Order: sequence, then structure tokens, then C-alpha cells
Amino acid sequence: MRILLAQINPTIGDFSGNSQKIRDGIKYAKDSGVQIVLFPEMALVGYPPEDFLLLPHFIADAGKALDEIVEASKDVVVIVGTIRSNPNPAEKGLCNTAAIIENGVLLGFQDKVLLPTYDVFDERRFFSPGSSLKLWTLFGKKVAVTICEDIWQHSNMLKYANYSSDPVEVYRKLKPDFVLNLSASPFSINKSLERIEVAQRAASTLSCPVLLCNQVGGNDNLIFDGRSLYIGADGSLLDCAKGFKEDYLFVDLETKVQKKKVEFNENEDLYESLVLGIRDYFFKSGFKKACLGLSGGIDSAVVACLAAEALGRDNILGLLLPSRYSSAGSLTDAEQLAHALDVKTHQISIEGPFKSYLELLEPHFQDYPQDVTEENMQARIRGMILMAISNKMGYIVLSTGNKSELAMGYSTLYGDMCGGLCVLSDVTKQQVYALANWINRDHEIIPFNTIQKPPSAELRINQKDSDSLPDYAIVDNVIKAYLEDHLPPEDIAKSFGYSLELVKGLVARIHRNEYKRRQSPPGLRISSKAFSIGRRFPIVQRYIL
Amino acid sequence: MRILLAQINPTIGDFSGNSQKIRDGIKYAKDSGVQIVLFPEMALVGYPPEDFLLLPHFIADAGKALDEIVEASKDVVVIVGTIRSNPNPAEKGLCNTAAIIENGVLLGFQDKVLLPTYDVFDERRFFSPGSSLKLWTLFGKKVAVTICEDIWQHSNMLKYANYSSDPVEVYRKLKPDFVLNLSASPFSINKSLERIEVAQRAASTLSCPVLLCNQVGGNDNLIFDGRSLYIGADGSLLDCAKGFKEDYLFVDLETKVQKKKVEFNENEDLYESLVLGIRDYFFKSGFKKACLGLSGGIDSAVVACLAAEALGRDNILGLLLPSRYSSAGSLTDAEQLAHALDVKTHQISIEGPFKSYLELLEPHFQDYPQDVTEENMQARIRGMILMAISNKMGYIVLSTGNKSELAMGYSTLYGDMCGGLCVLSDVTKQQVYALANWINRDHEIIPFNTIQKPPSAELRINQKDSDSLPDYAIVDNVIKAYLEDHLPPEDIAKSFGYSLELVKGLVARIHRNEYKRRQSPPGLRISSKAFSIGRRFPIVQRYIL
Repeated sequence: MRILLAQINPTIGDFSGNSQKIRDGIKYAKDSGVQIVLFPEMALVGYPPEDFLLLPHFIADAGKALDEIVEASKDVVVIVGTIRSNPNPAEKGLCNTAAIIENGVLLGFQDKVLLPTYDVFDERRFFSPGSSLKLWTLFGKKVAVTICEDIWQHSNMLKYANYSSDPVEVYRKLKPDFVLNLSASPFSINKSLERIEVAQRAASTLSCPVLLCNQVGGNDNLIFDGRSLYIGADGSLLDCAKGFKEDYLFVDLETKVQKKKVEFNENEDLYESLVLGIRDYFFKSGFKKACLGLSGGIDSAVVACLAAEALGRDNILGLLLPSRYSSAGSLTDAEQLAHALDVKTHQISIEGPFKSYLELLEPHFQDYPQDVTEENMQARIRGMILMAISNKMGYIVLSTGNKSELAMGYSTLYGDMCGGLCVLSDVTKQQVYALANWINRDHEIIPFNTIQKPPSAELRINQKDSDSLPDYAIVDNVIKAYLEDHLPPEDIAKSFGYSLELVKGLVARIHRNEYKRRQSPPGLRISSKAFSIGRRFPIVQRYIL
Repeated sequence: MRILLAQINPTIGDFSGNSQKIRDGIKYAKDSGVQIVLFPEMALVGYPPEDFLLLPHFIADAGKALDEIVEASKDVVVIVGTIRSNPNPAEKGLCNTAAIIENGVLLGFQDKVLLPTYDVFDERRFFSPGSSLKLWTLFGKKVAVTICEDIWQHSNMLKYANYSSDPVEVYRKLKPDFVLNLSASPFSINKSLERIEVAQRAASTLSCPVLLCNQVGGNDNLIFDGRSLYIGADGSLLDCAKGFKEDYLFVDLETKVQKKKVEFNENEDLYESLVLGIRDYFFKSGFKKACLGLSGGIDSAVVACLAAEALGRDNILGLLLPSRYSSAGSLTDAEQLAHALDVKTHQISIEGPFKSYLELLEPHFQDYPQDVTEENMQARIRGMILMAISNKMGYIVLSTGNKSELAMGYSTLYGDMCGGLCVLSDVTKQQVYALANWINRDHEIIPFNTIQKPPSAELRINQKDSDSLPDYAIVDNVIKAYLEDHLPPEDIAKSFGYSLELVKGLVARIHRNEYKRRQSPPGLRISSKAFSIGRRFPIVQRYIL
């Protein structure tokens, strides 16, 4: 039995485009003499469609698009993820489902049973769980069709849910010949390895192969890595599709294959995921060109490298926006980077508008000392210039703040936080350094000076980030322990040997800056807990002050 | 039997403050010779605490706070909403619950059964449903304790859920003597009447009184109206607590009372809800002072009136920020308003910075025609000045855009969209006019000229909103039909007699501007579908182009 895992990159709600990709996959499968072709979870719709699922006409259009797929499925079995009206009376009128189509006939649907409703997932908002699990007989084989989360409870690796049912245990009694899994399982660092382990545990329990077809591509802040899987009956990894790219993975169940060893480089994954995230954010919404401020610092340098890779160097414009406080190195570092990347730049001093504002506000500010106001003004003038270039010439502004800054509120709302996409919003400062070194692994692209100099916003004389923040290593440890592991400050202080006062101060700072993040551009999620829809905290609260 | 409904205004996570309010209520109940005192859903925690519910130390602190309440409950029965660890193995380890305390002894918990997971509600993200319904014997009476949604399924008035169980039907067999309902049911226009009907239907089915205690106050973008209810066994409304204020409602079940007639004025409700929303947003986070741009237009005028009422006129600063395109009327209208409200103003011309930017960008823009870029620049200079005043003097900026503008993207990101709170983000332009007239019902506060002149952003010569938008009556009809009723464009066009092209264009515009709204300040929800956490649409999509 030959099976094709068609790891495609759908766009949300693009029924004609997604249907075309699916029909291309079907044609390719047929041309290759394959019996079954498997697509990702909700491949026809794109995942996650969010509140489009509340529109009756959207659901009807998904139904029509499925009819086309059925039509195109002559002489082959097609299993494709989509949505359908719930046939049973239940809390929600919709199911997340796999359509099972054989030779132009829709055999039926297998609905998803476990509905993730945590972090970035809102499936209980839209779906009711499927009510029955059964095996499908395809070419004389008994096949279990599962959707993403359905095989995760069995692994005991879920953090935010502990479902009372475990579909893998149900299937154990039914004894399938193999398992197909349709996934839209988003990337985060180390998630690819976790997913392999989840599929391996299911295969080991069921003593049968598990074939998992995962979505690839970026949809808003979620990045899907693909890396579709073929796991053998003994739980060994036998094959793995490409990461961060569309791919077709052929599986021949009768042919014995060697175990496959995979290694994922964390920095390479980080780089590839962000490049894919930028590219899809732009291309799927019809944009091509990006501009960004090049400060000579490491964050903007890394973003420029990622953007040049994602969009092509011709589509990048770097803006050098010096002020009276910019160091000489800032301009030369930024120029050196632009030269290495071969991207065009404009230099525009912010001194004129800065002076103009200072004069204008002087009568109102004369009784007040100079403070963060004047620093924010400079950042906001830069934001204004970037947005003017964006409006006039059609560039999308990339904002260059990182996760550590966003956590601490070390950024200016409507200033350096301006933009259509905040590329590093889930990348800590430490990870930014690692990325920079990885980008420079063969030769110097990002100037060594940019990497080596102490971080500074350069908004006043001799300013350093370390004036107002502890070392980023400390900040990043606290961020991870608090955001990802939900540890109380006491435990964080103890486990790292930090003072409780320090940790409490940083945690309070995270909460105090919720209002800024609420207005930040969308970012790209690469950790298990990003600032985005996956983390929902009130702005007004009195638990942490 | 005398029962007190203690309609309190809790703050999210303020265990000591909320506990104090609850102990005050208990003392008041005892002093008044009451047998049972009832508090709102999650009164101890504040609703909605969102992801605080994922922190084990938060849950532990809620437990400790409950111990204090138990301690304070000598000689009375206290029923208070809180959270508790789920005693049963289930998908989620937490329940939304009512603690039932008698004379200093915690009798037990009644967990919420129906968990709203739609619109602004995410309860399935945190909670598993309660597994049993029973009656509690209190002073010899059989009492059904229900939490908010538990009585809503029975009404058939839910839009986004159709639960397969109906607690009211279960209680029908148990024959309670009366029903207590703990609610945190947020306000939207007409919601108070709906809630009365829901409680009435439960009372009619069960042929027993229903006493509903609702949270009051603003928590981020949700406003709770209070209006706790006493419904008689025949389904008549017998009493209703105050709207938009803390209140104690006494119910004596043995005393026969007259039916009560309530009428709610839509404009008064709108006004009171927004005032409460502003006040709690500020006071609960420790801020007092607000500044805003006064353009002479109706939106900023209405916001100024609401803010002056909420925060006191001494705490309001109006900024008059004229440009070369401002009409003479703009300044005089703004001044007249400020005078009527007795709020202080500063006038700062934006001409200096505007010239400075035009000169600075001239070399880069010389090949391009003048366009929306220059208009946005003016709005952004105003944003900059407002934010500088905010940073320097500690005012929070109120942004003044309305729902119609946000829907259409008729606003400048980082310009007039700057602010800590977007007061009118859920108020359509038509509702803004109605509010203005209501504010003026006794005498002219908002200048008649402000109300009568055609809306204009005044960012170029003789600009009118109607240059780029259809009549606001049309825009508002389409917004409501599409956002609240999820109608497809074809049905909207037919039902209003608009051209399909026009409707499709407006719907596309709503989706195209998702990116702007994602970065808008938080707003106050007053409709059944606000731009906020209650409406989740992808930015990048190809369903509506």
C-alpha cells in the first residue's frame, strides 16, 4: 500500500486556492500510483479560521469546496481535513472533521474528538467533539483516522488539558492496521521532537504504523513546521517530511525501511520559522516590500537579515534615523549591515522634528524636568517617518522589538512599536544573540561590533539598557519561568538563586506593561507561550502590582 | 426568610479588596437580620480573571481568601462565587463554583454546569463543568444554587451555544422552594431586559422565586450592569437593584409585594455604562486624570462629557490641536464645549512639526503626489503631542474614534488611535449622535454646531467623511447586520435595499482593517458584538478581499 502525505500550505478561507493545492496533490498521487493521499487538518479551510467559523455562508462555502474535491477523487482514496455541520444535537453546531473519499464517493466523516481549548487554541468556541470512533476499511485494511490532538492525550505530554477520554486506548481494542493523523500542529522550539514522540507512543501502543500529515506555513502569528511523519509499528521514526516547506512524503507500508535519525538545530529552526512567518504574512496578504529602522543594534540587524531572506533583498528598505544621541558606531554599523545584505537605505535625521516638538512643548513643559517623555518623542518621530514611508511608498513596517523588551515594556508605544509585524516578539534577547551568531556562522554579515557592543536605545547620552534592566540573562530566565512554566516568584527566585524582590519586580513589570503589548503589532510565535492570543491577561487587575 | 443580594463591584485578583467588600456585605446582612446573603459569580476573584486562572498560586490565594469569608460567616448563610480545584478527574482542573457557607461552616460547593465559550467568554479554557445538581437545605427550605449561564439554556435565547443539558429542567424534577443565581453577566444594549426574561422563564417553569445577584462594574472592556433581580414564583418581576452601581437588594420571600415595572432608557444606559467603564478602568488601575484632543467634532465632545462625569472635570485636560486645515468653527466649538464642561484646555498648533516633517521628507517624496500620507502625518503629530503630555504630566489619553470608524478603518493608526482607552470603540456614529442629544436633553452642553455640521477629519481642504464613506446610517446598518447577525452580504443588501456591490465593499473594508483594530487601545463593550476579544478574525485571509 502506497500512501502520500501531502504537506500543503493553505491560506485561511482561500477555498479556491486551497482546493487547487488539494487537487494538485490528488493528481500527483494518482500519477505516482498511490492508493491513499492524506492532507492536513482543515486543509480545505486553513487553520485557524477563527470566527469565520461563525458565519453560515463560510460553512456553506466549505461544503461546496469539498464537493469539488470529491469530484476530483476518482481512482484514489483522499482523506482531507475540513469542517462540517454537526449531525448530532450538541452545544456547537460544527465539527472539525476528516472527509474520507474513495473513488469519487464521499464515504463519510471522522470527527475530531479532543478539542484543544488552551493557549492559542479555541476549538470549544466552535466545535463539539465527535461522538464515535471507528475503523475505516480501505483497500482491505482497517484504518484509524485521527485528527491532531486525538493522539496527544495518550502521550501524557499535554500541559493545559487532561482529557477524560483517550482515543488511542479506544483504538487499541479495535486493532487498526495503521493510523492516519491529520494535523495543524503549530511550531514552537522543540515542538517537532515532541510531536515525533507523541506519534511514536501511539504507534507503540497500537503496534501499527502512524502516518501524520501536518500543515506547513504561517497564518497570522502561528507558524506550522510541517515535518509530516511516518512512524513504524515498533515506534521507530522511518521518515520525516521537510520542515517549513511544502512537501510530499511517500510511504510504502510493505517496503521495509531503515530507521531515520533526525536532528533539528534550534537556531536553524528559529531562523527558518521566522523567515516562513514573514514570507507568508506578506505574500498571503498581497504585500511584497518591507521597510525597517536600522539602528546599528542587534535586533534590527537580525530582522533585516530575516526579512531579506523572506522577501528578497530588493524588497527591503533600511532607514537610518540618527538623533543627537546616536553614537558614531550606530550609523557605520547600520551601513555595514546594509552593505553586507545589499539592501538599499535612506538616512533621515530626526533632529529637525525633535527640535520643533521641543520648542512647541517648551511653554507647557518648562516646570517639569527632562524625563522619559523626550526619549519617547524620539522613538515616535522615527515611528512617524517609517509610517510615512510606508504610506507613501507601500512598504510594510517591520518592528524590531524582542520578547524581553516587550515583557519589560522597554519600548515606546507608537514609536519603535510601530509596524505591521513584530518579527521578534517571541524571541528573547538571548535568542536574538544566538540567531545573530548563527546568521554569521560562515562569515560576518551582522557586524561584529553590533553583536559585541552593550545594548542601548540611544535616547539619551550614554544610555545603556542595563541602566534600567537587570542583565538580559536574568530577565530571560524569569520570563521563561513565569510565562511558560507559571511558577510563582518564590520558586523562580529559589531555583535561580535570585533575590525575591528582583523576581517580584520583574513579574510586576510584565503585568504593568500588558497595556503596551495589547497595542503591539502581531508577532510570530516560536515559544510555547507567546504574547498574543495564546496569553490572555487583564490590563486592570490588582493581583500583581 | 430574608435574603440579601449583595451587588458588589470586585476588581480582578484583588483578593483583599474583594474579600473586604464581601465581609462588609456579610456584616450588613447580619445587622439587617437577614438569613442568607448572596454574592455574584466569582465575586471573590472578579470576573473575568482570564489566564490568572492558569497560575497555581492564584488558585491557592483564592482558597485562602475563601477561608477568611468562612470565618466571617458566623450566624448567617453566605453564598459566594469563587473558583475551586476540580474534585473530579476531568479535562480541566478547575471549576467555576459557588461556596455555600452556613454559620462559619463551609457546607460545600455547587459548580457551574454550563460554561459559556463564545464571544467574550472563554470558560472552557479554564473550567470543566460541574457534574451534579442538587438542592441545598437552608433553614428548612430546598434551594437550587445556579451560576449565570446555568439558567440561560432554558430560555432558548442563546445565540452561540445550544447545550445538550438544561439545569432548569433537572431542577424541575427536584422541586426547589426557590432558586439563587450568582451572575457575572456583562452589559450590552437591551441585555438587562433579556436577563429579566431569562430569570422569569426559569421561575415560571419551576413555579418558584428566582433571585439573581449580578456583578456590577467595569473590568477591562466588559461592563457589568448589576440590576440584580427578584422574580416571583409566577414569573413576575418583583424587584430590581440599581443599574451601574453597587447596591444591596433585600428580598423577603414571605411578604407579598407588588409587581415592579422597569423601563430602561437606551441612551441613559449607554451613558451610564460608559461612565462606569471609564471610571473603573482608571480608578481600579490607580489613575485619575485623562487628556484628550478636542477637535470641535461630535466624537471628542461626547468623550469629554463622559470623562468629565466619570473622573470629575478637574481631572480632564482638553487639547486643541489646530492645523492649517482646521475650520474656524473647530476651535470655537471646542472652546465652547470646554467652557460648558468647565474643563481646562491647552491650544497647541501642529503647524511647526508638520512643516518640519514635510521639509524633511520632501527629498524622498518629491516624485509622489500628495495623498493620505500627509493626512496621517497630521493625525500622528496630534497623537505625539497627546502622548507627550500624557508621559510628562501623568494623564491617560482617551482616544475618541467610534465603532463605525474602527469598522471602516477611517482612523489613523498611531494618530487619533493613540490612547489608553478607546471610549466609543463599540458605539456607532448614529449612537454617538443619540448620546450627544441625550447629554443635551436639558440644555446645550455639546454645541449645536458640533452636532449639526457634517463630520470631517479636517486633514485636507474641505474634507468630509462622506467623501470616502457612504452615509453613516448605511455604514451602521451594515456593521450591525454583519457583525452582530452574521448575515452574508447578499441578505444584507436585500433586507435594506442596498446594492450588493456597496455591501460587499463595506464588508471587505471591515476585514481589510482588521490590522488597525488589532493595535487599537482597549474599548468598552456595549453591544452584543464588540471589536475586542469577543471577535476573533485573522488578519491574513483570503475569504473576503
